[in-house]
Amino acid sequence: MKEVIRYIKDNRGNYVEELKDFLRIPSISTLPEHKDDIEKCAKFVAEKLKKASLSRVEIFKTEGHPLVYGEWLGAPGKPTVLIYGHYDVQPVDPIELWNNPPFDPVVKNGKIFARGATDDKGQVFMHIKSVEAFFKTEGSLPLNVKFIIEGEEEIGSESLNAFIKRNSELLKCDAVLISDTPLYKAGVPTLTYGLRGLAYLEVEVAGPNRDLHSGTFGGTVANPINTLANIISKLHDKNGKITIPNFYDDVLNISKKEKENYKALKFSEKKFAEDLGVSKLNGEKGYSTLEKIWVRPTLDCNGIIGGFTGKGAKTVLPAKAISKISMRLVPNQDPGTVVKQFVRYIKKLAPETVKVEVKDLHGSLPCLTPLEDPAIVAASRAMEKAFGKKTVYVRDGGSIPIVPVFTKKLKAAIVLMGLGLNSENLHSPNEHFDLNHFHLGIISSAYFLKEYSDN
Amino acid sequence: MKEVIRYIKDNRGNYVEELKDFLRIPSISTLPEHKDDIEKCAKFVAEKLKKASLSRVEIFKTEGHPLVYGEWLGAPGKPTVLIYGHYDVQPVDPIELWNNPPFDPVVKNGKIFARGATDDKGQVFMHIKSVEAFFKTEGSLPLNVKFIIEGEEEIGSESLNAFIKRNSELLKCDAVLISDTPLYKAGVPTLTYGLRGLAYLEVEVAGPNRDLHSGTFGGTVANPINTLANIISKLHDKNGKITIPNFYDDVLNISKKEKENYKALKFSEKKFAEDLGVSKLNGEKGYSTLEKIWVRPTLDCNGIIGGFTGKGAKTVLPAKAISKISMRLVPNQDPGTVVKQFVRYIKKLAPETVKVEVKDLHGSLPCLTPLEDPAIVAASRAMEKAFGKKTVYVRDGGSIPIVPVFTKKLKAAIVLMGLGLNSENLHSPNEHFDLNHFHLGIISSAYFLKEYSDN
Repeated sequence: MKEVIRYIKDNRGNYVEELKDFLRIPSISTLPEHKDDIEKCAKFVAEKLKKASLSRVEIFKTEGHPLVYGEWLGAPGKPTVLIYGHYDVQPVDPIELWNNPPFDPVVKNGKIFARGATDDKGQVFMHIKSVEAFFKTEGSLPLNVKFIIEGEEEIGSESLNAFIKRNSELLKCDAVLISDTPLYKAGVPTLTYGLRGLAYLEVEVAGPNRDLHSGTFGGTVANPINTLANIISKLHDKNGKITIPNFYDDVLNISKKEKENYKALKFSEKKFAEDLGVSKLNGEKGYSTLEKIWVRPTLDCNGIIGGFTGKGAKTVLPAKAISKISMRLVPNQDPGTVVKQFVRYIKKLAPETVKVEVKDLHGSLPCLTPLEDPAIVAASRAMEKAFGKKTVYVRDGGSIPIVPVFTKKLKAAIVLMGLGLNSENLHSPNEHFDLNHFHLGIISSAYFLKEYSDN
Repeated sequence: MKEVIRYIKDNRGNYVEELKDFLRIPSISTLPEHKDDIEKCAKFVAEKLKKASLSRVEIFKTEGHPLVYGEWLGAPGKPTVLIYGHYDVQPVDPIELWNNPPFDPVVKNGKIFARGATDDKGQVFMHIKSVEAFFKTEGSLPLNVKFIIEGEEEIGSESLNAFIKRNSELLKCDAVLISDTPLYKAGVPTLTYGLRGLAYLEVEVAGPNRDLHSGTFGGTVANPINTLANIISKLHDKNGKITIPNFYDDVLNISKKEKENYKALKFSEKKFAEDLGVSKLNGEKGYSTLEKIWVRPTLDCNGIIGGFTGKGAKTVLPAKAISKISMRLVPNQDPGTVVKQFVRYIKKLAPETVKVEVKDLHGSLPCLTPLEDPAIVAASRAMEKAFGKKTVYVRDGGSIPIVPVFTKKLKAAIVLMGLGLNSENLHSPNEHFDLNHFHLGIISSAYFLKEYSDN
């Protein structure tokens, strides 16, 4: 193992240069004009996997963008790790806010600036390099490794979703290793062991068959905006609890150990509120801010529109009003069940004076890996060795929709060993990745392969 | 008088062609890109007044859109009538719902379709043509006439407001004749003797200092959309009463005579609901539908916007949400007082977790003319002669903000001799005007000039 780590340290500079080549490819998945770049990027990844000495590397065509697969299964009897990541990136607009061109990587103050630096090319690359380091020094890996690197994460992972369902044997593994989540703080080794799920709906309230003059008709028919507002206002009680009947039935309570873990993180609610510019935080009574984000389900209106929204005044009583409403779900809630509960409740809240329609736009399952899972234990030790500090355990309030598909279809443990930071402008101009975290990530990955092989 | 009426009947077809020219000018007052059309439309009206033989016609420039003034004061000792109307029109969106282009007038089934057909170009035009008919046949008018036709009615009549205050001598009159209100029913001669006032506000709820990811932040800060919805939901109680403290203090109760008049109108709530496509009517408990529209104040959201409103899903927790909220006021409510009550109440309803700002966009006083006024009596007889039926007396739920200014500054009786129909889609796609009413309106106008001259 010493040799592996020394090799990684010796090549620290080379890895950055190689990463730059990766970041130069503008693999924006949502823009059709970048289709060639996407193909080029998939080939780049495949080449790097070959160079890392994987025994089988293949690019799978899909309905959308290609999937890059790689494997080395030369350790019979040992566990198999599936490493997942994505080579596609977000668009770059507003381009004028970038200090450097987004696909011309620049290193400044120990950070590399480029679109995709932290989300997710830099993080994918760590694992390719740790695998390579084993082959370069020990000639083999201590366990079996598979890679699946997709090109549609930023647009919904549809092709991978279908691929997993059809190829669960090919992707069979004991653990899925993913680096696409943030560290709790710079320099603090972090494992994310839970993600929230999602149920995203659209509610339309329709009143009169046309927009009406609010003078001539106001006060005689239900106003769809007022009615929608009434419905929305009834979705929370005064303690911030969601009022949908049976909504909390399947919510897993936070364990005592988790509660203690979170307390130990010394999260500053004051700093959090200051950063957001709010004088007072909000949410479900009886829970800390971290608990509200990580272990409690929430309901938010993501959008609302109805009637006249231009400058000035128009006295219209609109025919309809629409709101996008989503719920973040926690284990063991099921988006299918929640959607049914939501629709039933909305229909009950809707007065006879309007017609209400609810559309289910999309959803994903929450997920949670037990802290005692051998993969989590190995990952924790690995990061501790790399960073020289105790690993902290966090959850994340967001969702990575493909993760629950891995859990369900592959029945594998999920290890979210992310090395990014929430402050690294992912999805925004001047995205960057801390090169020290990049380096520690390669070392963490190498230690993980070793630690988990002893299982 | 016979000659005048015969002349009007003989020219029925010509009037429609002339009206089409008027309707072709897209004089949308609220859109700066139509400024030239507004100028063009003012000139058009001035030309028509000149052609009608008025002795003085003038276009007055204002801070906003021009005012067209015309007069003939050749009947000393006789009363003076000021005819008011507006040449500006509402915007046309949603344009895709129009069956014909809004500024390319089409006649179908005895109706003329175009933006402004009934509101108010068609109705303004009736009076220009009745005056013209007198000059063409009798060479003079039986009383003194002034015209003031503005281009800002749909955006608040600010310039006319200021003009009246500075030119009350120029506009001095005994009665103001206005056709910008509906008939009670097709073919039923109708005088409107009361209008509701208006207080129009914009409420902005601001939360975090930027749009947030609803996964990473959902459940910890107040969501401006949900908060705005909560505020809106508290503006009515379960009986449809407005909950603003002291809001009803100055509301004048309906008289016994009015209540009987309204009953006699045999208004069909069933038909009203069917026309609007609602299965059930709504509003303040304890009042009939006509009373709700005519004699009771109301509160409606005219628009709302916040967060993501495109197709599909975006998991944003928005920085702010805005609603346009207006109240229709009845005698003797005062918009200034109501705005103060509203702002105070909204601030009270707003939780500490958000910042709420209220803007007063515009307002107008309600008004009421006594049924015994000689101008009302003359107008009633005039319509009876034109239609061959008894005139009915109604109020209107809408506001014509300039009307209370006329009352206050000119101390003149207000005659609301409208020929439109509420079903004519004013402010909506496919606005139209019944050409039979247009014709009867010209005749009613002519009879009014005669009847009122005998006063």
